[in-house]
Amino acid sequence: MSVQCAKNTRNIALRLAYDGTNYHGWQEQSNLPTVAQTLRKAIEAVVGSRINLIGCGRTDTGVHAETYVANFQTSSSIPTDRIPYAINTKLPSDISVYEAAEVPLSFHSVFSSTKKEYTYVIYCNRVKNPFYHNRAMFYPKPLDIEIMRRAAAEFLGEHDFRAFRSVGSNVKTTVRTLFSFDVDVEGELVKLRVSANGFLYNMARTLVGTLLYVSEGKITPEDIRGIFESGERMNAGPTVPACGLYMTDVLYNIPVF
Amino acid sequence: MSVQCAKNTRNIALRLAYDGTNYHGWQEQSNLPTVAQTLRKAIEAVVGSRINLIGCGRTDTGVHAETYVANFQTSSSIPTDRIPYAINTKLPSDISVYEAAEVPLSFHSVFSSTKKEYTYVIYCNRVKNPFYHNRAMFYPKPLDIEIMRRAAAEFLGEHDFRAFRSVGSNVKTTVRTLFSFDVDVEGELVKLRVSANGFLYNMARTLVGTLLYVSEGKITPEDIRGIFESGERMNAGPTVPACGLYMTDVLYNIPVF
Repeated sequence: MSVQCAKNTRNIALRLAYDGTNYHGWQEQSNLPTVAQTLRKAIEAVVGSRINLIGCGRTDTGVHAETYVANFQTSSSIPTDRIPYAINTKLPSDISVYEAAEVPLSFHSVFSSTKKEYTYVIYCNRVKNPFYHNRAMFYPKPLDIEIMRRAAAEFLGEHDFRAFRSVGSNVKTTVRTLFSFDVDVEGELVKLRVSANGFLYNMARTLVGTLLYVSEGKITPEDIRGIFESGERMNAGPTVPACGLYMTDVLYNIPVF
Repeated sequence: MSVQCAKNTRNIALRLAYDGTNYHGWQEQSNLPTVAQTLRKAIEAVVGSRINLIGCGRTDTGVHAETYVANFQTSSSIPTDRIPYAINTKLPSDISVYEAAEVPLSFHSVFSSTKKEYTYVIYCNRVKNPFYHNRAMFYPKPLDIEIMRRAAAEFLGEHDFRAFRSVGSNVKTTVRTLFSFDVDVEGELVKLRVSANGFLYNMARTLVGTLLYVSEGKITPEDIRGIFESGERMNAGPTVPACGLYMTDVLYNIPVF
C-alpha cells in the first residue's frame, strides 16, 4: 500500500534564478552571504525543519543564474505547486524560485545532470551602459565575431580541458565534452553560449577569455589545438570577469520540469 | 574675426543614461544624492570651474533614463569629442555620458525640447524575476493587451491632462499633446511607450495606471473621455511604481546628436 502522508519523505527539485551580485557564490561559507545559505534558510522556514540543499553547481562570487536547479528532501506535506510561492515570500528580491517538482529519491542536482549551459554576456560599445553594470563584461572595442566563431568550433567534442581551467577544485578527470559553443550578436550585446556534460573550475570564463584573445589577434583559431596538447593554463586566454556569466540551462537524465 | 579660444563660452549638450535606483531623482536637493548633483560635480572636475547644469526633466526617485539630455556652458577648451570619456572617469557606474555636442548658446534642455518619450516596463509573470528588480513593475496577472491599446488611443491628441497628474509642481497650463501611446509585448515584458510635447508631474505613471485599470475591468476605454471632462484625479488609475519608468527619448527644435 502506498499512501502519501506527512511522514513520507519527498525529494523536491526547484528551478530558480538569481542575481549573484550580492553573494559570495552559491556554496555555503561561514560568515559570508551565499545563495545556498539564503535559499536554505527560506526553505527551512517553509517546511519547518532543517534540510540538506543540493545545488547543480558551485557558481562563483558575482556569477548569475537564469536557470539553476537545486533539490532537497523533506517530510513536509506542503503541496508541491505551492512551494515556489511559499519560499519566495521568505527570499530577498535577487533570488526567485520559478517552479518546484517532486522527483525520485535518487535524483541529485549534480550527479543526475547530463548537460549544463552557461551564457557569457559582453556589452560591446565605446562607453559603458549603466544598465549592464554587474550584468555584463564591458568591452570597448569591436569584436571579430567571425573569427571567434571559428575558434569556438575548435572546442567542440571531447577534450582534456586542463589548460582551460583554474586549479582549485578536486576532480577525477579533466576530460569534458562540449556539445555547443555559439557566438550571437544582439545589438550591443555579444552572447557566448556554451553547453557541455560538465564544466571545470573557471572553464566557461577561460573559454570566453580565449575567444577574446583570438578576436584581439593574440592567438589564432588554429593555435587552440596546440593549447589543448600543451595542457598549460598559461597558453590560454584570461579568466574574464564573473559579472558576465549566467548559468542558463541544466538538463537531467529524467524530465524534471 | 571669429577665433575659438579658451575664453569663448561654449554651450555643451550631453546625451546620457542612468539607473535611477540609488538617486533621489534628477533635481539637486540638499543632503540627498541626485543624478544632477553627481553629474555636475563630475563635469566641474573636468572643466575646472563651477557650472550651471540644466536637465531636460525632473525625473523622480527611482526613475531611470535610457536617453536623457542636459546642457551646461563652459569656457573650458577641452575638445567636445573628449568630454564624454573625461566625465565618465569621474562618474559612478550607474550614470554614463554617451555623447557630447556643441550647441548654440540659446539651446536649453527644457525650453528647446519639442517632444519627450517615456517607456514604462512591466514584468508580467506569475513569479518575480530577480533581473527586473528595481528595473520593471512586477505584475503577476495576465494583461488584456488589446483593451489597453484601445484605451491608449483615447489619450492621443491635445487634451487637458489635469485628471492624470499629481499636484505638486507649478505649471501655466495642464494642456498637453500626446503624439503616440503604444503597448508592445516582448516575451514576459509589456512596454508602454508614450510620447508628448511635455509631461505633467506623474502624468506618465498615471496614464499607465489608468491602462492597468482598464485591463482589470475597473473602467472601460469609453470612460476615459469622461475622466478628461471631470478633471478629477480620483477618477483616473493609480500612479504606478517609479522603478518601471524610463525616459527613452528627447527631441529638440534643432538637430543635437
